[in-house]
Amino acid sequence: MAKIVIIGGVAGGMSAATRLRRLKEDADIIIFEKGPYVSFANCGLPYYVSGEISERDKLIVQTPEALYDRFRLDVRAEHEVTSINPDSKTVTVKHHGEFLTEAYDQIILSPGARAFIPPIAGLKEADNVYTLRNVPDLDKIMMRIDGMNPKEAVVIGAGFIGIEMAENLKHRGIDVTLIEKAPHVLPPLDEEMAAFVQNELKEQGVTVITSQSAVAFKDAGKRVVLEDGTEFTTDLTIMSVGVQPESTLAEQAGIELGLHGGILVDETYQTSVKDIYAVGDAIVVKNQITGEDALIALASPANRQGRQVADNIAGIKRSNKGSIGTAIVRAFGLTAASTGLSERQVKMAGLDVASVHTLSKDHAGYYPGATDITLKLVFDPSSGKIYGAQAVGVKGVDKRIDIIATAIKGELTVHDLPELEFTYAPPFGSAKDPVNMAGYAALNIIEGMSDQVQWHQLNEELAKGAVLLDVRSEAELKDGYFPDSINIPLNDLRDRLSELDINQPYIISCRSGQRSYIGERIMKQAGFKVKNLDGAYALYQTVKPEELVNV
Amino acid sequence: MAKIVIIGGVAGGMSAATRLRRLKEDADIIIFEKGPYVSFANCGLPYYVSGEISERDKLIVQTPEALYDRFRLDVRAEHEVTSINPDSKTVTVKHHGEFLTEAYDQIILSPGARAFIPPIAGLKEADNVYTLRNVPDLDKIMMRIDGMNPKEAVVIGAGFIGIEMAENLKHRGIDVTLIEKAPHVLPPLDEEMAAFVQNELKEQGVTVITSQSAVAFKDAGKRVVLEDGTEFTTDLTIMSVGVQPESTLAEQAGIELGLHGGILVDETYQTSVKDIYAVGDAIVVKNQITGEDALIALASPANRQGRQVADNIAGIKRSNKGSIGTAIVRAFGLTAASTGLSERQVKMAGLDVASVHTLSKDHAGYYPGATDITLKLVFDPSSGKIYGAQAVGVKGVDKRIDIIATAIKGELTVHDLPELEFTYAPPFGSAKDPVNMAGYAALNIIEGMSDQVQWHQLNEELAKGAVLLDVRSEAELKDGYFPDSINIPLNDLRDRLSELDINQPYIISCRSGQRSYIGERIMKQAGFKVKNLDGAYALYQTVKPEELVNV
Repeated sequence: MAKIVIIGGVAGGMSAATRLRRLKEDADIIIFEKGPYVSFANCGLPYYVSGEISERDKLIVQTPEALYDRFRLDVRAEHEVTSINPDSKTVTVKHHGEFLTEAYDQIILSPGARAFIPPIAGLKEADNVYTLRNVPDLDKIMMRIDGMNPKEAVVIGAGFIGIEMAENLKHRGIDVTLIEKAPHVLPPLDEEMAAFVQNELKEQGVTVITSQSAVAFKDAGKRVVLEDGTEFTTDLTIMSVGVQPESTLAEQAGIELGLHGGILVDETYQTSVKDIYAVGDAIVVKNQITGEDALIALASPANRQGRQVADNIAGIKRSNKGSIGTAIVRAFGLTAASTGLSERQVKMAGLDVASVHTLSKDHAGYYPGATDITLKLVFDPSSGKIYGAQAVGVKGVDKRIDIIATAIKGELTVHDLPELEFTYAPPFGSAKDPVNMAGYAALNIIEGMSDQVQWHQLNEELAKGAVLLDVRSEAELKDGYFPDSINIPLNDLRDRLSELDINQPYIISCRSGQRSYIGERIMKQAGFKVKNLDGAYALYQTVKPEELVNV
Repeated sequence: MAKIVIIGGVAGGMSAATRLRRLKEDADIIIFEKGPYVSFANCGLPYYVSGEISERDKLIVQTPEALYDRFRLDVRAEHEVTSINPDSKTVTVKHHGEFLTEAYDQIILSPGARAFIPPIAGLKEADNVYTLRNVPDLDKIMMRIDGMNPKEAVVIGAGFIGIEMAENLKHRGIDVTLIEKAPHVLPPLDEEMAAFVQNELKEQGVTVITSQSAVAFKDAGKRVVLEDGTEFTTDLTIMSVGVQPESTLAEQAGIELGLHGGILVDETYQTSVKDIYAVGDAIVVKNQITGEDALIALASPANRQGRQVADNIAGIKRSNKGSIGTAIVRAFGLTAASTGLSERQVKMAGLDVASVHTLSKDHAGYYPGATDITLKLVFDPSSGKIYGAQAVGVKGVDKRIDIIATAIKGELTVHDLPELEFTYAPPFGSAKDPVNMAGYAALNIIEGMSDQVQWHQLNEELAKGAVLLDVRSEAELKDGYFPDSINIPLNDLRDRLSELDINQPYIISCRSGQRSYIGERIMKQAGFKVKNLDGAYALYQTVKPEELVNV
């Protein structure tokens, strides 16, 4: 009878355990979890802070007792494996101060990732700084909130969890300052897409500080000092600057580590040490788009890997094909999501890149309640290979990113996006879905129907002598306009082409980029040198409002 | 200067016109539309009946004036092309009783489909029978509703539009009887999936009659008589039994027709007559899954085809790759959607078929507001090729069907579905999305991990001697149970296997099929002959409640 020891009882570890049981009724399956809970809803933790998830029990999805009853799993919470001894095929386990030894035939390591804690002066003396990775972390935060009624909080790190914490603390009635070291919140997104979220956070009363790190805590954590010397008072500080693989145990067992200390595994999840497998946030995976090593700490791949490693151990061969990284965050009234690579990541990988920004409604505009979705598609301008996508909006953002994630996994190109046939009835979509529209826009670039200028290239193009032609209606100029731009409403453009100089390069803009594209086509066919400002005024206004004339 | 005549100014025709203008500023583009409106929101019409779309103007998306101003299109509404004369390259057009002649270089036919009107006795004398394809149809219905305050309505045909009309009439306070010739509503869906919608319609007070046609109208339409002699009184009758290609004009021009009178076109949308192209509901397309001829009357393919034919005429080569048919309908509190082929259609095509039904939440169960999605995946049991999918639920149905539609277009197989990485945060999804789960379930079938019995095979299997083993808890039996079944709660199954007969074939069931699958695995590994009832009690209760013991 095989004896399989699983280290770590959340996501990957528990998926592996239950699948293994369905495959091998006779296996001895022991799960060691160092914390007090297994199978808890780590992605739900922030929502308990505001009370949006109101019952703490809801966060504990499974108990050791329930797992024994249904799966005959031997789940041992508060059991920390302190060493793996491959020579004797045993593990040493610490439980309530006692050490015990357990033999194994195979090990599945699913230790996850731990919060990264940067070295900040005064951290040790601070008694109000927390991370949020598990239920005990949450309990500590809630004890502070319920017991001491904090008025001000600082969240350090504006990634997905940082933003969720900012929102939920704010909903709780606490003033929040959100600090991000990168130039914008949500570093996995590109700057202009993250700007939508940043604006929403500010509108909802969150103080957002970017391009700044916390360098010191003072007064037992009551004050946070930034690089530039600014100080913020805080009753409660959340550190959410990222995670790192929990690979200390693996390293001590002699298992080879890779990128940023992640556990190296082969396609079948075998580590460098025989009979020891690893899955989840702690392992190095292949980014499926670039083929490069990556650390992707997400629940969905972890669950899949857990199931696959169980299959491999049971003799059903599965390969880890890699991950693309799909993520979403709600920030008050807005949702932002991404899949695959950002434009910045593609550039960093040294690849050619193009992108388009489209502004469409989440469902038919003539049906009540339609809201805007800004969708960015990042692709190879030669082959049309889809590198990634990002979207922000009130509703329907998850659907569009999930569709594009499917397209990426299926190796579809931008040529295929217009071909996709989606559900359309007025409450759900449009005859041309935002994903179709993004495909058309990308094809127009690839096929040379449209030349574009990105928002971050505009000033350079203007400096080189281009003139900005705004084809919005006069009434729309009341929302603000580009300085030194000329305005000819699109419908008048054909009749007023004679006012333009055929030797003058133009950049054309409207609100969303759709009318300006029509204008571009009119002008190109008339022999003008013209480029379309991708995303147009609406995007520029989001990311660089200070450069515009705001009426 | 090329002169392109477009016949039909909605969806396909208007997409072609605007794209053509962006490609050819110098072309003469004339659109003849026989009705008074172009570019109207035909999918929105039913929602005006209830007032959900409250402004009639919202349904008129474009006007001839606006299209001239922006695209220099010569849009002529109330102009009916009465003949195409390929020899002289002219069309004859009727306008307010006058005939005129217009020359063309190319024609794009986009005549659409018309409501099919079955020959029913007394139809001519009936003054309260309507179809709903366009704004004038809607105006007539609204005049009846507003002017005569009908109390009772009959809707003949329970397809997508029939169901939308039933809902909107009901919202308007009118008693509705919905009559469908097929054995269930929504014939494009399989019976058990349509049953969810049928039950919802009944719960919302709609009288649903299936397997019956209307055979006569009496008293000027005041009474509708069914095949079995039943009569219903009605103040207002909507005929929505389907559509047929509007191909009379094409036929008269000598253009070859195909399936059910649809216009035959090649991959570039050329008809059999030179310089005449056709797109939209009227053309015969390839079903992309079977490669067979099909008529697919949907807005999304029509729009794409319109754009593609414009490209072809302008010299950018595009091929019609075919359609898969993706559709959705809201029926009161429930949404039903489908893509690709139903199980019935796959069987009719003579292909091997398997299917799985999964019951999952639209987002993480621990986050408030999660609702059920029943998802049916139809696939080839050898290759795993995805033939189609259907889903019903309160929320998130459109997303899952759109994802699977993308997978089908991308020729992914069920093996790929677990690999898909979706957006997951508690308000939006789960770490294992319903689409992932359906993929796992299908793989379990393909790989022989699970043997299944479909709801419609259950009685046959029981008659052959199988015994139904229900592994729900005792408390759940209060919701009803299978007659002659035995109950062993899943958690007790291992300890009570000795109560079962190793020589007896079993069919195992729970509520959704998930626990019974675990039970199946336990029993299979213990040497039992056992099959899992796919969809389990919840599905059976939806489609065949009368066979169950309802406590």
